[in-house]
Amino acid sequence: MEAKTSDPEPKFSHGALVPRGFALRKASPNVNHPSVTPELDDLFSFLRFSSISTDSRHAGDVRACAEWLTAKLTSMGLATELHETPKHPVVIARNVHVEGRRNVLIYGHYDVQPVDPLELWTSDPFKPEIRDGRIWARGSADNKGQMLAHVLGVEKTLRENQGLPVNLIFLFEGEEEIGSPNLASFLVHHRDELRCDVIAISDTGMVAPGVPTLGYGLRGLACCEAILRGPKGDLHSGLFGGAVANPATAIARLVASMHELNGRVAIDGFYDDVRPLENWERKMWSRVPGVEDADLLKVTGSPGLFGEPGYTATERVWARPTAEVNGIGGGYQGEGSKTVIPAEAFVKLSFRLVPDQNPRQIMNRVTDFLQRHCPPGVEIEVRPGHDGKPYITDPNSKYGLAAQTALRTAFDAEPVLIREGGSIPIVQTFREILGADTLLLGLALPDAQIHAPNENFPVENFEAGIRLNQALLGELAR
Amino acid sequence: MEAKTSDPEPKFSHGALVPRGFALRKASPNVNHPSVTPELDDLFSFLRFSSISTDSRHAGDVRACAEWLTAKLTSMGLATELHETPKHPVVIARNVHVEGRRNVLIYGHYDVQPVDPLELWTSDPFKPEIRDGRIWARGSADNKGQMLAHVLGVEKTLRENQGLPVNLIFLFEGEEEIGSPNLASFLVHHRDELRCDVIAISDTGMVAPGVPTLGYGLRGLACCEAILRGPKGDLHSGLFGGAVANPATAIARLVASMHELNGRVAIDGFYDDVRPLENWERKMWSRVPGVEDADLLKVTGSPGLFGEPGYTATERVWARPTAEVNGIGGGYQGEGSKTVIPAEAFVKLSFRLVPDQNPRQIMNRVTDFLQRHCPPGVEIEVRPGHDGKPYITDPNSKYGLAAQTALRTAFDAEPVLIREGGSIPIVQTFREILGADTLLLGLALPDAQIHAPNENFPVENFEAGIRLNQALLGELAR
Repeated sequence: MEAKTSDPEPKFSHGALVPRGFALRKASPNVNHPSVTPELDDLFSFLRFSSISTDSRHAGDVRACAEWLTAKLTSMGLATELHETPKHPVVIARNVHVEGRRNVLIYGHYDVQPVDPLELWTSDPFKPEIRDGRIWARGSADNKGQMLAHVLGVEKTLRENQGLPVNLIFLFEGEEEIGSPNLASFLVHHRDELRCDVIAISDTGMVAPGVPTLGYGLRGLACCEAILRGPKGDLHSGLFGGAVANPATAIARLVASMHELNGRVAIDGFYDDVRPLENWERKMWSRVPGVEDADLLKVTGSPGLFGEPGYTATERVWARPTAEVNGIGGGYQGEGSKTVIPAEAFVKLSFRLVPDQNPRQIMNRVTDFLQRHCPPGVEIEVRPGHDGKPYITDPNSKYGLAAQTALRTAFDAEPVLIREGGSIPIVQTFREILGADTLLLGLALPDAQIHAPNENFPVENFEAGIRLNQALLGELAR
Repeated sequence: MEAKTSDPEPKFSHGALVPRGFALRKASPNVNHPSVTPELDDLFSFLRFSSISTDSRHAGDVRACAEWLTAKLTSMGLATELHETPKHPVVIARNVHVEGRRNVLIYGHYDVQPVDPLELWTSDPFKPEIRDGRIWARGSADNKGQMLAHVLGVEKTLRENQGLPVNLIFLFEGEEEIGSPNLASFLVHHRDELRCDVIAISDTGMVAPGVPTLGYGLRGLACCEAILRGPKGDLHSGLFGGAVANPATAIARLVASMHELNGRVAIDGFYDDVRPLENWERKMWSRVPGVEDADLLKVTGSPGLFGEPGYTATERVWARPTAEVNGIGGGYQGEGSKTVIPAEAFVKLSFRLVPDQNPRQIMNRVTDFLQRHCPPGVEIEVRPGHDGKPYITDPNSKYGLAAQTALRTAFDAEPVLIREGGSIPIVQTFREILGADTLLLGLALPDAQIHAPNENFPVENFEAGIRLNQALLGELAR
């Protein structure tokens, strides 16, 4: 999933790396998986690198992880290159390409999110453990477990068949969690080597255990921050309360103006370019397990579902745009009370966008709206943030159908076709620079806890991922 | 002015106390007042104590300050007692009381607010300096400078007349800035010794330099905090945005519902018990200097004035109730963006109340309003905080007229009669426990920076305060 800005530093450093396999052979009592396979052995080695891309103190761990990956891919017989970027390396690997075969690019990222709050982890985020059939570690789901399944699927096919049925390109980056700042430029510079017919990414989720899931859409994103300024400093609310506008009161009014009472976004023109849901989508989604209201209530822990009228909660997440407050603040934040009128207040907003909304145009409309609705007595500054376009492709294109077949094979179940509520800006970048569409073959479960403490990935999904890769390359070759 | 809850610790400790007078005789180059008087010498000694009552690490400084004060009062020939409380001492001093004379109580406090952010002070808050005719130090205005003027006025009268014209009781506490938690109980236990006809306090402000100011009203206060809870933890705004209510969005809507667009408070029954402004008040206040719109704009630095329609800004501050957001928070507070739906959001509210509003009744109405207006999809908790009743007395009572005459004498100018926007809960407590009304003879200037960096108090106001005390006791004796 998309990058976050820098999280605070982890509580302790994971600089000392355990030699590959060492910890597994001297297994901790918590490692209760019945038999450790060579594949899991590889994954555990991969997971032990604290490759936190946002934290410069982990730059060495990110590099060590890239080098381990390079060695692994090389050992499989792939032509592998570690490319420097201004920050963390890109690793490229390819088999011997044969004229006339399909060119397939598989993307993944070996960097991970920070781990704090560390005290909420049941086990060390960089000492993977298997408990209850799941692998617990930072990056187990996002994205090391999912990407390594593809690597190991290729390894297996190469071992079994002495070759692959397609011209494969692995593209693995170490900067996804910081917004892939160098990848677009890398793609431009290596456009010819990376030319491909289709791209596959396993960096999203399955709707429920055992339900193979093909994602064909992603929401886009537009972020901004608004700051309201009133008095030159915090004022005593007794001496001045009533005379001047309170920026915290004003930010509340401004934020409230962005939605109608029923939850619909009230920003002028916000829905103008929204592509309506198709009937087949609504029908398909109504039968998708794991995303019913009861599921969403359970996974979020919210007291109730709420949102734009006329759509199910799942439709709202997958195919409708939103305006969210990611942070609001102003005035006294400590315990008890302090009777001040704050000098300023802020709100951090993000807008999830759907086809065919344009992030820049939306941000212009948002800025205009916020400025026009700024309450009296305060001054407003709107700071635009990062953005990314929404994405949609046809799940029933020839590649989409190949992916569906591969999913059916790997999981022995009928795949569901969904869109994702999150944003993977790189998918849009691939389309723009490489001219290829992306198949989203997510393997993480809804409770994978990505970006959070106790991230986890089922062993069976890891194994299914290996089968999926084998089936996918076979299907795409047809 | 009323207490605030604990501020963060000061940047460095002021534990090492300079012996009385020492630093003054070895004056720093910044002390550019032409001649240091014995009165200023006393004040500087008093100001050097970092008597920050909210910070337990300064408990020793608070006590040392109380002991210095006790010694000073004793040296003047007053019968002085330092009374222990569960926290900081109360100091009581009295002259020899004579049957049939007026009993006058003068209250003050020797504790001060924290000093952070220390880096914004031009000079050390506990190393008083005189610059541009003002004394710069924490507590110079609030309240050491004002209260010591009364002490030194009494000293002067005792020296000049070998006695006072009234039965005087000095009551000085060290807990005002933390809400006087032990004073009411102290008053109850010492009710007989503290019996008095009238009370005088100099712990408020003058409207403008040279304009003697009699305060006859104070606003009351009611504080609370509302917390809205949604998902059990912060959610990824892509994966879940649209499905559930966002507590930060909801808190904004809830806060916005508290006011009409024009600034009037929208809480049902909020204005029911508000005593209308009298015509003489509006007429008097329209002529009070220093509180015109231009003054308020200048002192606050706000881009514009704003508040309840139908009243001038000064009328709104002195005689109309308000609902203020003192703090609002939820979600990501750092730099840049983090696309979460926060698990919860809070707002800290305070309501400034006027006669004849009842804080408890208002808090019930507020709680009811907040609960009824809580947006869907979140749960609300309202935590009531501290409160204090509003206060009003007749400025033209015999004691009020005596105070006006004393102000006229001390400043050689016609006094103005005002109410204060702030709250001094102890004034209401005095009325309830001791049965006496309070004269508010404020000496601080509007830019005194109380509770803020660079607190200051004009030397001429300090000197006028000494004259005021002498004139006041004379007038009250009549």
